[in-house]
Amino acid sequence: MYNAEMARRAWENLKTVRTKRPLVHNITNYVVMNYTANALLSCGASPVMAHALEEVEEMVTLAQALVLNIGTLSRTWVEAMIKAGKRANISGIPVILDPVGSGATRFRTDTARSILEEVSVKVVRGNPSEIISLYDDTSESKTKGVDAVHTVEHAQEVALHLSKKFKTTVAITGAVDLVTDGERQCRIYNGHAMMGSITGTGCTATAIMGAFLAVDEDPFMASCTSLAYFGLAGEKAAEKSGSPGSFQIALLDTLYEIGEEDIIQGAKIAI
Amino acid sequence: MYNAEMARRAWENLKTVRTKRPLVHNITNYVVMNYTANALLSCGASPVMAHALEEVEEMVTLAQALVLNIGTLSRTWVEAMIKAGKRANISGIPVILDPVGSGATRFRTDTARSILEEVSVKVVRGNPSEIISLYDDTSESKTKGVDAVHTVEHAQEVALHLSKKFKTTVAITGAVDLVTDGERQCRIYNGHAMMGSITGTGCTATAIMGAFLAVDEDPFMASCTSLAYFGLAGEKAAEKSGSPGSFQIALLDTLYEIGEEDIIQGAKIAI
Amino acid sequence: MYNAEMARRAWENLKTVRTKRPLVHNITNYVVMNYTANALLSCGASPVMAHALEEVEEMVTLAQALVLNIGTLSRTWVEAMIKAGKRANISGIPVILDPVGSGATRFRTDTARSILEEVSVKVVRGNPSEIISLYDDTSESKTKGVDAVHTVEHAQEVALHLSKKFKTTVAITGAVDLVTDGERQCRIYNGHAMMGSITGTGCTATAIMGAFLAVDEDPFMASCTSLAYFGLAGEKAAEKSGSPGSFQIALLDTLYEIGEEDIIQGAKIAI
Repeated sequence: MYNAEMARRAWENLKTVRTKRPLVHNITNYVVMNYTANALLSCGASPVMAHALEEVEEMVTLAQALVLNIGTLSRTWVEAMIKAGKRANISGIPVILDPVGSGATRFRTDTARSILEEVSVKVVRGNPSEIISLYDDTSESKTKGVDAVHTVEHAQEVALHLSKKFKTTVAITGAVDLVTDGERQCRIYNGHAMMGSITGTGCTATAIMGAFLAVDEDPFMASCTSLAYFGLAGEKAAEKSGSPGSFQIALLDTLYEIGEEDIIQGAKIAI
Repeated sequence: MYNAEMARRAWENLKTVRTKRPLVHNITNYVVMNYTANALLSCGASPVMAHALEEVEEMVTLAQALVLNIGTLSRTWVEAMIKAGKRANISGIPVILDPVGSGATRFRTDTARSILEEVSVKVVRGNPSEIISLYDDTSESKTKGVDAVHTVEHAQEVALHLSKKFKTTVAITGAVDLVTDGERQCRIYNGHAMMGSITGTGCTATAIMGAFLAVDEDPFMASCTSLAYFGLAGEKAAEKSGSPGSFQIALLDTLYEIGEEDIIQGAKIAI
Repeated sequence: MYNAEMARRAWENLKTVRTKRPLVHNITNYVVMNYTANALLSCGASPVMAHALEEVEEMVTLAQALVLNIGTLSRTWVEAMIKAGKRANISGIPVILDPVGSGATRFRTDTARSILEEVSVKVVRGNPSEIISLYDDTSESKTKGVDAVHTVEHAQEVALHLSKKFKTTVAITGAVDLVTDGERQCRIYNGHAMMGSITGTGCTATAIMGAFLAVDEDPFMASCTSLAYFGLAGEKAAEKSGSPGSFQIALLDTLYEIGEEDIIQGAKIAI
């Protein structure tokens, strides 16, 4: 049922991240900065957070991937995201967008859409409500703060439209993740309900996808494989702890500990 | 000695938070954003952090409570707090204020007071020094950074004045917590000294009070019951760990694990 | 081989921090705010984070040390750092600078240098690449984001120049730490490779140095002794955990738990 070749690629990507230690430039939200920096380090990547208009262009050219996350957006930060994104485009550095809370407020929806219009984004990762809000004006305000109210299946058609319109890979995460680049489509069955009990799980998924994008030139593949790895880490962390505080810590540990056999046997990617 | 009815209400409130998962909008400080978001999730609530002037009014109308915390304040953030607070007032969404460090600098004292003047606040929670600074100019500069130098007993009279002046509930937290709405008064004996060994315990108390405010229309009751629950979690976490790093994690775990019997037997609320 | 008198001083300094609980004012980066606040509490110090131009001068006069860290700098924050730093100078409050990522972008290098020009700084702590960038224009852009590419030995000569030019103590941290005030020189052999697997280890070292600066009038001594203490905590935390999530927590625990015997026997300071 699950694709062995994809599992193999997941391991190869993780191994490459651990060896090359790509620099991942994050312009992200205050809530998750510490956790995603630690998650990137646990994967083997090297995180940097920098948002000043004076330096984002220079910083991004040192990086191998750029993560844009609008979780606690403000006008200046969005400006910095677009500036960094455009510079990344010029230098061929892959950009990933996390439209946190898009659909909850007009400002978030508009911002997420304008980043998509102005920056060539390799991957957009969001929950179903966020993804739908990027395309469909009728279902606006359906995001509950930053939590989803739609299912992945609801968002599937929108993902297809978006991927074609913006020539991007769209990853919708939920109980089962769905990834499409408009031509290929994949479902990832890894993950655990405990991942919803801590803040920033989605943001962390996006950051790790950024690290994989830095080493895998195919954004669709980078997305599928990183989500399987992250979901698998969630499963293994849930074996260690059933309460959110210690689960959060176990998840960082597991990202670091996962090895070849774990991924080969545990990755649940279905084409 | 302890009130059984209040203990029962604490459990009912917690159960309702876990069932309804109220959205709690936080405009809070950088230091505690991650921890309070996780604490809210551990309680069963749904946190959102948003501070942009462009969206706070829209975001707060989606929420069931608004938490204002001036821990790392700046002019723009204060502006956003007042804007969100006024909008919350119009929509009947309860607002809670945490005047972090009020009394330490003129800017903090002035800000805390002006929020109280401009926004109708259901609850103010602070340590004794912060509460005193909101009323009494002679004891200013007596807050040591963000830590208290006065005892709860010192602040009791001020709390009474404040509650009447601003028609609000005042919660002073310390070794024993004191809550008053000007007519009723309660002491909560839950809590543990370890809670002072980690950053943001007060801020976390305020956030959790916000979640309880979202489900209990009586701010006095919401305050008393949430403080008992949080203090009890601190006691139980201290049984698991006597060092601050692991205590911090155990506290999140315990917020999630606490059940009916724990609260019925452990809540120490005295009228 | 290791200096027993220095080990004794490390313990005396730690004991004094735990007794006097000095207030350490931090203007630092978003990524590490929570962790360094907790680390300072674990040491026994009292942290406060405040960056508003309206209050930094007033806040710093309440403090016993000021920590400036440019990890997520922006123009306003740098302005606040310089304002607070100048006020600290007037009041004789020691200032420590952490030039995070200096050398990675022109903005960071310029900022770090201008703080050194405008504020009298007692200690500068950085990794080798950051320290070199403060002096030597030819090796710019050699910082990989916020991670070092040079060794401590490379930076030794620069440290000597810097310490004389700015009449400051320079601490270069790495596998072995090197501290010089232009006349004296010390190497600290404490530490563990796991410390590089979590974010903000350098920033945390700087914050703890700030706490020691608050109680030891000799910046050279405060630097050497705090680095030994922090490195020793890292060693002991690594005995408890070999994975980064739980290591991060164990490190906070260990800072709190370390006692006289641990330091007397474990401090590895060589003159």
